[in-house]
Amino acid sequence: MPIRPPGAWMRAEILEEPHAVARVLDREMRAAAAVAAKARRGGARLAVLAARGSSDHAAIVGKYLFEWAAGLPSALAATSLASLYRRDLALRGALVVGISQSGRSPDVVEYLRRARRSGALTVAVTNDPGSPLARQAHDVLACHAGPERSVCATKTYAAQLAALYLLAAALAPQERGRALRRRLERAPEDLSGIMMREPEIAAAARRLEDVRRCVVLGRGFSYPAALETALKLKEAAGVFAEGLSAADFLHGHVGMLARPPRNDLAAVLLETPGPGAASLAEARKRLSRFGVATTVLADTGPDWLSPLTLSAAGHLLAFRLALGVGLDPDAPAGLSKVTRTR
Amino acid sequence: MPIRPPGAWMRAEILEEPHAVARVLDREMRAAAAVAAKARRGGARLAVLAARGSSDHAAIVGKYLFEWAAGLPSALAATSLASLYRRDLALRGALVVGISQSGRSPDVVEYLRRARRSGALTVAVTNDPGSPLARQAHDVLACHAGPERSVCATKTYAAQLAALYLLAAALAPQERGRALRRRLERAPEDLSGIMMREPEIAAAARRLEDVRRCVVLGRGFSYPAALETALKLKEAAGVFAEGLSAADFLHGHVGMLARPPRNDLAAVLLETPGPGAASLAEARKRLSRFGVATTVLADTGPDWLSPLTLSAAGHLLAFRLALGVGLDPDAPAGLSKVTRTR
Repeated sequence: MPIRPPGAWMRAEILEEPHAVARVLDREMRAAAAVAAKARRGGARLAVLAARGSSDHAAIVGKYLFEWAAGLPSALAATSLASLYRRDLALRGALVVGISQSGRSPDVVEYLRRARRSGALTVAVTNDPGSPLARQAHDVLACHAGPERSVCATKTYAAQLAALYLLAAALAPQERGRALRRRLERAPEDLSGIMMREPEIAAAARRLEDVRRCVVLGRGFSYPAALETALKLKEAAGVFAEGLSAADFLHGHVGMLARPPRNDLAAVLLETPGPGAASLAEARKRLSRFGVATTVLADTGPDWLSPLTLSAAGHLLAFRLALGVGLDPDAPAGLSKVTRTR
Repeated sequence: MPIRPPGAWMRAEILEEPHAVARVLDREMRAAAAVAAKARRGGARLAVLAARGSSDHAAIVGKYLFEWAAGLPSALAATSLASLYRRDLALRGALVVGISQSGRSPDVVEYLRRARRSGALTVAVTNDPGSPLARQAHDVLACHAGPERSVCATKTYAAQLAALYLLAAALAPQERGRALRRRLERAPEDLSGIMMREPEIAAAARRLEDVRRCVVLGRGFSYPAALETALKLKEAAGVFAEGLSAADFLHGHVGMLARPPRNDLAAVLLETPGPGAASLAEARKRLSRFGVATTVLADTGPDWLSPLTLSAAGHLLAFRLALGVGLDPDAPAGLSKVTRTR
């Protein structure tokens, strides 16, 4: 067997993100339009997104996009309601989207099964169109990402986001939807731009090698990217990282800075030119008052694309940090690929 | 001026939780019934809960309760959509609940203002019935908690939960609603039982004095109590604590255990006899395999009351730990009472 260098899969899969997104944009536009048309015909007044892990961060992006682009109130599923408490919801006519790379997360599958039985229009966003999740769904948006070998989901996360962007654009009023799709076509280039920044991100990762506690802050659209970056910092690099909205951080969470020593603490800030910038700047000021080092991952593209671009930057950061501290991000301690949550 | 011992306010306010809950149960049952009747008349097929900080944990409890007891799909508001992105949602007929102790969180007030303009039935759960939030609401559920002096919200959080329990019971089918209300009447006794356990919780807190990184795990109904406990551990005791669902923890987050040393790491598990017990037991096994010390806060009452009882246990834990490490939980570093998030 050839020797695989640590993290070889994860790096290759991160570098595939632009292509994975391009494939979904190429191939799933019609399917997304068909789902949106069905949802409109069915009078959908609510969307629900069900997922776990990284896919749950994609679900949050979906909620923001559906609400921001289409004014459609959207909820994240409390999947335990279906899997643990076995309750059904009054979901007649609602658009219910299950998101899972493998299509095999038992609680997401169970949520979709119950939603469909309650009269919802169910959609699976999955990398496996033959999976149990896809079989519970009226429609499938496929991720076309190819097999994912690293335990850390990266290219499939990007592909899921692409599918949700397409769906949001299809649900939006015509003019806005067209504008979104037009800008979306250039998203793969934005992602390639992030990949070009690997050396700069690697330098940032080197500065985090002694950090054991890390807060990752976003605001507005960069908030889900903060959650995603924090999860990867844990998963790949063994850092106790938490993703937070800068607004919530400035509220009670800032108390975590109160006890010295703080030399094992750091903050990563995900900045965009969007309306959340002021709140991130305030958080940065507060952090520096406590002497906490901050690393900024910034993107200058449209705010609403930052969940895609800044998550990719976060993926690279976690990957480089994992190598720096001697971990193999392709096989993190005690993790396996399919979530068996029931 | 008399000298106030550190944490005197927080302790007094935690000990008031049973009484605060009793007052809301006594005084707000009719108001909750009236809101539910209006929501039914208006054909509400969706509830949205808008809040920040501790109140946001109350909002999560509200979502679980509305879905579990009444089958009403419920969403947490992405308040930034209103405050940062100035977008309106199609909320005609929806039940929109704003939760804020002071009634002065600008983004929650703005969310309710836009929701009302969009045709939603708006309700304020607040300690100040004369507040801006109450003025944006068609109906008010008052918390009757008296002035809260500690920066850490405790009794007002409990009172908010009581109001949401009443509302969930009023939204539920008659028979189930009656059963919930009957059991709810004894909730103040459950809380007094938690208060009696202060010595045992204080001993647990002493074992956490050297801990700088702490994961707080719940599952199902105890999940929001995990978020609330983690926030108070940060806010009052300066611990980098994160609340997680045990299901999510067993997925990627467990990676945070990968890098030694782990002697500054601990886990707090919030256990109930509910269907989430298995998942918490699995998390406990995984934690012990990594040599991470676990503290269990358990409650034997009905699972659905654990957001109230186990949060109170978490409040006591954070309070005792704050004293143990020499912090004044009434005046945490860099925090103020009203969240000014816009």
